[in-house]
Amino acid sequence: MEIGFETIGIIRSCYKEKFGIPRQAGLAPTATATLELLPPFNRAEAFTGLEGFSHLWLLFLFHGNNREEWKATVRPPRLGGNTRLGVFATRSPFRPNPIGLSAVQLDRIEQTHGKVALHLKGVDLLDGTPVIDIKPYLPYADAITTANGGFAAEAPTGQLPVHFLPEPNQTCQALENDRYPGLRQLIIDTLRNDPRPAYYQKRAKKKSFGIKLFDFDLRWQQDDEGIIVTELLRRDH
Amino acid sequence: MEIGFETIGIIRSCYKEKFGIPRQAGLAPTATATLELLPPFNRAEAFTGLEGFSHLWLLFLFHGNNREEWKATVRPPRLGGNTRLGVFATRSPFRPNPIGLSAVQLDRIEQTHGKVALHLKGVDLLDGTPVIDIKPYLPYADAITTANGGFAAEAPTGQLPVHFLPEPNQTCQALENDRYPGLRQLIIDTLRNDPRPAYYQKRAKKKSFGIKLFDFDLRWQQDDEGIIVTELLRRDH
Repeated sequence: MEIGFETIGIIRSCYKEKFGIPRQAGLAPTATATLELLPPFNRAEAFTGLEGFSHLWLLFLFHGNNREEWKATVRPPRLGGNTRLGVFATRSPFRPNPIGLSAVQLDRIEQTHGKVALHLKGVDLLDGTPVIDIKPYLPYADAITTANGGFAAEAPTGQLPVHFLPEPNQTCQALENDRYPGLRQLIIDTLRNDPRPAYYQKRAKKKSFGIKLFDFDLRWQQDDEGIIVTELLRRDH
Repeated sequence: MEIGFETIGIIRSCYKEKFGIPRQAGLAPTATATLELLPPFNRAEAFTGLEGFSHLWLLFLFHGNNREEWKATVRPPRLGGNTRLGVFATRSPFRPNPIGLSAVQLDRIEQTHGKVALHLKGVDLLDGTPVIDIKPYLPYADAITTANGGFAAEAPTGQLPVHFLPEPNQTCQALENDRYPGLRQLIIDTLRNDPRPAYYQKRAKKKSFGIKLFDFDLRWQQDDEGIIVTELLRRDH
């Protein structure tokens, strides 16, 4: 049976490419996004009462996937990329029905000119992600504190120290004073989760990596000791 | 954009009709179901590692809905059925994309003759429900203990006393000794969540209600004092 769904809204996120996105919601608490509802779903009354909830569930499509075929097993980054697990034992985006599930913080609901946008925090969402459902987070049903989390029982540590070279440091300061308050903490939150591919994580060798964050190219070097931000440059359009 | 999904498995549940199903997963901990995977998804390797998780998420279709049009507002039973809230502020099955989300307990994984079935507990799922995704429950990302649950901040009380008349009491005992261990507790768990429609909940008047549970017709009477099970009969096929 094939079932059809409609996109109800689109995510506008600080994360402009897949590399660097936190591997679950909540791992980078300062990562923000806006969910812009599409007509006919952008009606204020469809959200009455949602403002009382601190968190909500998003069901969305992993639209950045290129692979077409699903595989029965995947290699989670959490296990160093060497161990194969069943796709249904993971939250891998490469799954039979490529639907993602994220519990994000609801910052505020914006209603302007008959449009509706949800401002979100703690996201793990690529810019442009199509959303297919929004549900309130119900702590009494959803927060199962006794649950056993298998191979991913604990959060990734994410405690690598992050330093800035003088030039990106000054750029970051100027941007924070301008239109990007909280940019430094966002960079720290994002990088200390170690976005590197799993096969790098066992090597001590320094190497340079880069991601697109908002309108900027961010580059850093990383080894087992920590992370050094080497570049923060506005992208040419 | 219209997106197509495939059913990966079908739920076989003790709940044979919508009326009486707990209104969230976990509210009736003894409610069991089996998820039978469909080919080509019924491959053991697609589930390797899932056995380490105590709970999992099911994404499924609200296939029992007759209504075709979604409405921007709904009247949650939790608020007595009188107050309208936005559909995205509720977990109502009547939503633009009728996808359900339940965190259920994983009892065990059964592999026989090349088939795979997941045995589940604490379900709120109708028999025959099509499942479109299975994900492990990750406590570090999914159990948000600080979340504020809006109009549904606390679990429904579900503490009404449940008594059995002598005849259904004997039937229940006999069935427990035969093929339905735990049937009494399942009946208690199911009824004390008060399945009555919201417009009954403010009336003290006794009235008789019935649901189909497994192969049985279960009937009870209910008022503000409690619940009395009046019938437990095997259905004719």
